[in-house]
Amino acid sequence: MYTKKVENRKDLHVWIFFPYFVCKSNPIQMKKIISTISIYTCFCFAIMAQTPNQTIWYEQPANNWNEALPIGNGRLGAMVYGAFPNETIQFNEESLWAGCQTQSDADARTSLKTIQQLLLDGEIAKAAALAEESLKSAPLRIRSYQPVGDITIQYAGSPAGRRGEYPGYRRQLDLETGIATSTFELDGIGITQEVFISAVNDVIGIRISSNQAGKLNFKLSLSRKQDASVNVTGNNEITLTGQIVDLPKRDASPAGMYMKFAARAAGYHKGGSLTTVNNSFFVENADEAVFYITAATDYNLSILNFDRTIDPIQKCETILSQVKNKPFDTVKSDHIKDHMALFNRVSLNLYDEMNSTQPTNKRLEAVKNGTDDKGFTTLLFQYGRYLLMNSSRKPGILPANLQGIWNQEFDAPWNADFHTNINIQMNYWPAEVCNLSESFLPLNNLINALRIPGRITAEKTYNSTGWTMNHLTDVFGRTAISDGVGWGTYPMAASWLVLHQWEHYLFTKDLHYLREAWPVMKEAADFVLNFIIRDKNGKWVTAPSNSPENRYRLPTGETFMLTYGATKDIQLIRELFNACIKAGNLLGDDKKYLTRLLSVIKDLPPTKVSPRYGIIQEWIEDYEEVEPGHRHMSQLFGLYPGSEITPANKTLFEAAKKTIERRQEYARQGQGSSPGWSKAWLINFYARLGNGDAAWHKAVELQRERILFNLFTDHPPFQIDANFGFTAGIAEMLIQSHQDNLISLLPALPKAWDKGEVKGLKARGNITVDMKWENNRLTAATLVAAYDCIIQVKYNDRTQKIALKSGIANPIDIRK
Amino acid sequence: MYTKKVENRKDLHVWIFFPYFVCKSNPIQMKKIISTISIYTCFCFAIMAQTPNQTIWYEQPANNWNEALPIGNGRLGAMVYGAFPNETIQFNEESLWAGCQTQSDADARTSLKTIQQLLLDGEIAKAAALAEESLKSAPLRIRSYQPVGDITIQYAGSPAGRRGEYPGYRRQLDLETGIATSTFELDGIGITQEVFISAVNDVIGIRISSNQAGKLNFKLSLSRKQDASVNVTGNNEITLTGQIVDLPKRDASPAGMYMKFAARAAGYHKGGSLTTVNNSFFVENADEAVFYITAATDYNLSILNFDRTIDPIQKCETILSQVKNKPFDTVKSDHIKDHMALFNRVSLNLYDEMNSTQPTNKRLEAVKNGTDDKGFTTLLFQYGRYLLMNSSRKPGILPANLQGIWNQEFDAPWNADFHTNINIQMNYWPAEVCNLSESFLPLNNLINALRIPGRITAEKTYNSTGWTMNHLTDVFGRTAISDGVGWGTYPMAASWLVLHQWEHYLFTKDLHYLREAWPVMKEAADFVLNFIIRDKNGKWVTAPSNSPENRYRLPTGETFMLTYGATKDIQLIRELFNACIKAGNLLGDDKKYLTRLLSVIKDLPPTKVSPRYGIIQEWIEDYEEVEPGHRHMSQLFGLYPGSEITPANKTLFEAAKKTIERRQEYARQGQGSSPGWSKAWLINFYARLGNGDAAWHKAVELQRERILFNLFTDHPPFQIDANFGFTAGIAEMLIQSHQDNLISLLPALPKAWDKGEVKGLKARGNITVDMKWENNRLTAATLVAAYDCIIQVKYNDRTQKIALKSGIANPIDIRK
Repeated sequence: MYTKKVENRKDLHVWIFFPYFVCKSNPIQMKKIISTISIYTCFCFAIMAQTPNQTIWYEQPANNWNEALPIGNGRLGAMVYGAFPNETIQFNEESLWAGCQTQSDADARTSLKTIQQLLLDGEIAKAAALAEESLKSAPLRIRSYQPVGDITIQYAGSPAGRRGEYPGYRRQLDLETGIATSTFELDGIGITQEVFISAVNDVIGIRISSNQAGKLNFKLSLSRKQDASVNVTGNNEITLTGQIVDLPKRDASPAGMYMKFAARAAGYHKGGSLTTVNNSFFVENADEAVFYITAATDYNLSILNFDRTIDPIQKCETILSQVKNKPFDTVKSDHIKDHMALFNRVSLNLYDEMNSTQPTNKRLEAVKNGTDDKGFTTLLFQYGRYLLMNSSRKPGILPANLQGIWNQEFDAPWNADFHTNINIQMNYWPAEVCNLSESFLPLNNLINALRIPGRITAEKTYNSTGWTMNHLTDVFGRTAISDGVGWGTYPMAASWLVLHQWEHYLFTKDLHYLREAWPVMKEAADFVLNFIIRDKNGKWVTAPSNSPENRYRLPTGETFMLTYGATKDIQLIRELFNACIKAGNLLGDDKKYLTRLLSVIKDLPPTKVSPRYGIIQEWIEDYEEVEPGHRHMSQLFGLYPGSEITPANKTLFEAAKKTIERRQEYARQGQGSSPGWSKAWLINFYARLGNGDAAWHKAVELQRERILFNLFTDHPPFQIDANFGFTAGIAEMLIQSHQDNLISLLPALPKAWDKGEVKGLKARGNITVDMKWENNRLTAATLVAAYDCIIQVKYNDRTQKIALKSGIANPIDIRK
Repeated sequence: MYTKKVENRKDLHVWIFFPYFVCKSNPIQMKKIISTISIYTCFCFAIMAQTPNQTIWYEQPANNWNEALPIGNGRLGAMVYGAFPNETIQFNEESLWAGCQTQSDADARTSLKTIQQLLLDGEIAKAAALAEESLKSAPLRIRSYQPVGDITIQYAGSPAGRRGEYPGYRRQLDLETGIATSTFELDGIGITQEVFISAVNDVIGIRISSNQAGKLNFKLSLSRKQDASVNVTGNNEITLTGQIVDLPKRDASPAGMYMKFAARAAGYHKGGSLTTVNNSFFVENADEAVFYITAATDYNLSILNFDRTIDPIQKCETILSQVKNKPFDTVKSDHIKDHMALFNRVSLNLYDEMNSTQPTNKRLEAVKNGTDDKGFTTLLFQYGRYLLMNSSRKPGILPANLQGIWNQEFDAPWNADFHTNINIQMNYWPAEVCNLSESFLPLNNLINALRIPGRITAEKTYNSTGWTMNHLTDVFGRTAISDGVGWGTYPMAASWLVLHQWEHYLFTKDLHYLREAWPVMKEAADFVLNFIIRDKNGKWVTAPSNSPENRYRLPTGETFMLTYGATKDIQLIRELFNACIKAGNLLGDDKKYLTRLLSVIKDLPPTKVSPRYGIIQEWIEDYEEVEPGHRHMSQLFGLYPGSEITPANKTLFEAAKKTIERRQEYARQGQGSSPGWSKAWLINFYARLGNGDAAWHKAVELQRERILFNLFTDHPPFQIDANFGFTAGIAEMLIQSHQDNLISLLPALPKAWDKGEVKGLKARGNITVDMKWENNRLTAATLVAAYDCIIQVKYNDRTQKIALKSGIANPIDIRK
């Protein structure tokens, strides 16, 4: 397994930060500290004042799941309601999925050539009919990611307020520490509940403490609505065991008993007593109590299936046995240290913290009502980073799905699956630039694993060598066409995914990693080489394929998704083959192979401009779009995240602008659904177009229209990609490095961001960038490279060539 | 155990009604029948058209508990969401309470006389201080009624509509059959889910059927968030076992492991297969499936405590064993027959079914927006009857609590307890007049059981003989002062409760019953005799006591609840002693004793009119009320449900009107909370005042302001008393018989009810009354007496004396 050296540029002085951590995570202890160690608190507040607010907080408990606060360690996730006296902490384990392996590609080898020829001949209806018959796999659908269950805590005592009032209540999620803290009073006793998920120890840690000794009384229970039993398994342990019983579902895997899972909780107390009974821990008259809870399944990524040699109960026991005897403070401080090492790599300050004294919901409401709050944007930017590192991170092995790792439903919207025609890619847009490079590794794991079923899909569905997959996958490695032929025929998904491997190399410059990734990239390129055909103009095109989720209308009035040579496919091939040529050269691969890639690039159709509308053509022909305000803007892949459409090609650059204008105009007219992720994509487009004001306008629009109470983004319903796309977009406004060896500083700074400071963003080349600006002008920029290099740095219209020495802060003379 | 002969006046012709039942409970089968047996459907629709709509129905599943539909058999209750593909049926067993027996009266024997003297001397502050010290029991509070758990059903397949759309969906609760039916389509397969709770077989019955053979696939699970484990206990059985682990609660019973409980489910299938695993039944490819579910605790009313000789698991097994081999159709038809025998005794038609083609929520919304819908009133009237018979009925042994029998919370609002200072009484207001006399028997059971702890309260708290209790109780027979001395010192609760026994006799004329109830009534009277003292005017007064929940202000500005001789206490004594004299005479009891009661009555203070405001004085002195718009109107007990204030005493009758006006005026100004039950009480007051229009206005106001989505009434939150108070109020508008031997027909008919028909209402004397009216005038009235009698019948200003022969329909000549 590949491991990357984590860069931790901040050696924090423990003596300063200790009280700071305590204060932020435990307000009751905070009060004590304030009254006793005033010098510490001075430090504390001084530091807090300098740091933009990175805490999400409320003055009332969560009423529903979208008001609860997410914590996670990449493998385990939980949603903390902060409710009292009846608390809910809903929790997940990343691999717990319904269903089973259903590699089921139709064998299309005999009909593929006919379908291709019909497409080239413009006989779309015939091609679609034959494709429907011969490409459709069975079962066509995948199953859902599922929750493990609920941790419920019933506290003794009565709240002071009337129903709906919460005097003295506060709950918060401190993004810097990853600790969800709720403080409340019951019968006059102040209670603090801290919950976090440690990546170090792989457990959910809960500490419940009070401001009065011997007064803690509560019951903590584990439950799951279905497919599980919960029983006492020790003096201080409770175990939930289960197995997913699948119902038959139309076009999905057969009914049966599939994945096994377990969750195990151990409880500890100071003072009083702790008893286990039925599905509950019963804590009486304690000073404090601590719980470690973990969960596991018998899923095995290496076989993309559950594995009966794995015992989830045993897995839980092993994890718990390693944390059992550790003091909570150790587990907590190890967690904070680990969490901050990632989270604090990047800071962003737009010098607008005026509203940060407001609870987050009021702040959100104010934003929705038109209040300017740039501090809210920095909070949301950091939230995207927080969500990424906590849903996609070691010790997790699987990437962030449509809901990251957080899901309460047994049949989640769109299965909470891995959608590979934009969504999972968007999840990882912030990974590299926002200095969370290792968060990409779980996706890397999945990409590597998908190569095995992907070879079958390449062979049987597309009669090709290499590997590919289509528009979605699950933990069982689904690569066959899913959901339907028109919708699901998306053979370029593998090309897009392996480009993330290349990007990972570009940002890290880790040749060791590239050497491991290269065969996977190359095999994706092999698929393309084998799959593409010459069109009537002698150009290489994909066939069959689609331009994700959009339809075109033929002059006859018929509409189709199935097509050949969609603009995005060609852009992807160009991007992939260029990457492969560079990678191959770096690794000294076969020159003949690389030359062959180059020759294909030369014969790819160009990205075209529609003569009718002056927009980038989405399909190889200038078809009419069925939904001209469509949420997907696949033909702009070359603008972002691709790098084909730059100011260097003025025609395409201007056509890209027009494309965006037209899409939005129609979307405004209601001819498009504008989900959260689509708005997030637009922030990135505008950033690439160098239009900071439009990017900012779109970022605000997303905040006003697609942010839920807990700052999750709304498709609707909740879908996490827009959280990530938003964060990527903010970064893209501040720094860009997609053009060879060129780093653009503040390429799309909006007028409204007159003053700011950002630290720790990453440029390709493993270069860390800090910047300050005032009066809308860059005032300082410092670059730290991991390797010696010579780069070009651009600010406004000026570009300068700079030699960077590794590990040294290189201030940039911004006057140049 | 006392059993009453159930009067079933409707011998239904099965051949007519059979298709009617099928149609109403199973719309999918309905379609088949419509297409095949048209003659039957003619009957069917003809009957439906004649019957006022008695179905609550919706076009979408319940989103939350207050949208779910209640079913029950008096002992078991359930809330059916009708949600798909993920259904929830939350269920209750009437005796499942947290806590334990806490009979804990303070021994006030030495200080009581001092408290009484201080009260008489006007030294209220001193009296209150001493009372606080000497009357307060510990623990002061009781625990909550709790849910058993959830039945969840996950159906296979996907709905056709987008999120939030439910094409072809319908759910309904047919009040006539007590069956909650949901019909929906998943993957094009029509599914019908029928749920009811049989009083005959004491189980929740669920049938799931579809319109396509072999296509039913679902999972049915049992779960409880805390204090329980669920495991497979047979090939087709799953058992939930648990024991309530109580947390310590301020001023409540100590923490501990208390009541044991169990729930057991047995599943059956036609076609396909049924498997049990973990906490779920897994049904595959079935034609139909049936589940019987029951629940039990180890509660024993005769000891007012849990009883370790009772095994709840065994209880469940015994119940299930008796229904196991019965075909569902038999269980269902036995249930329908049993249910209809009670429900159909009364019908009400206000000839306004225009809006009944609208789903109930739209109808409610329209009412809230000002639409006139008298049919909605008849629906709500019948709903009150439905809720009463299903929350208080054999085989149940316990009465309806603040939520009837339906509660999803572990700590319910006000514990979902038995509040005896108005609420449980209001629950039973409709019982007799609405021809559900046996629904009173569970309250009768509790009253009888409370006599034992009530003797201790009489002795220790009040230094008296006899029995009494205070303002609330639980299943553990709490009779000591609870919640606080000012609030909880309500020694007249027993007097009020035993008056319900007397009323039960008056309505049934069942001397056998009266003989059983008499010792309980008498012992309540004994308490009063022993407890009352002479005030400075030589009048008999209660001391200490309160006028429920209201405070008065002394000229010094001090405010108190604790008082002596509150108007309501005196009215209650008058009502009780008069009842006892009648009962004692009937049963030939000791004349000396009865004479003593009479002599006390003569020396009771009169109900007074405040010289300042012309209203009925709430307290013995003309104190200022702290909250002049207070929800309780205790001083009007004599108007309703008592019988002291009638037009015969014009002064009091007019003062009662003024009292109501003043209360409402202040409530409108915000100096009162106007909960649902308070508005319901007002309907009854106006009915007794003969003001039909005002009663109707108040009934509409309650509908506009205090009715939840599922037609439960809102305190807020949900509290069932107003459902019952509403139904009683509608009945009281149509018939009154509280004056000796006088039956008033249509005593408070509002102008808006120009035409109507009511059948089956009861008058005291066990007289069943049917009436029709048109153009606001009575057009026909028929009385059926259970015993020969001579009565006076009043309509408008005319009264006639009539001799009724038992069992014969006696038409009344309304022109007389």
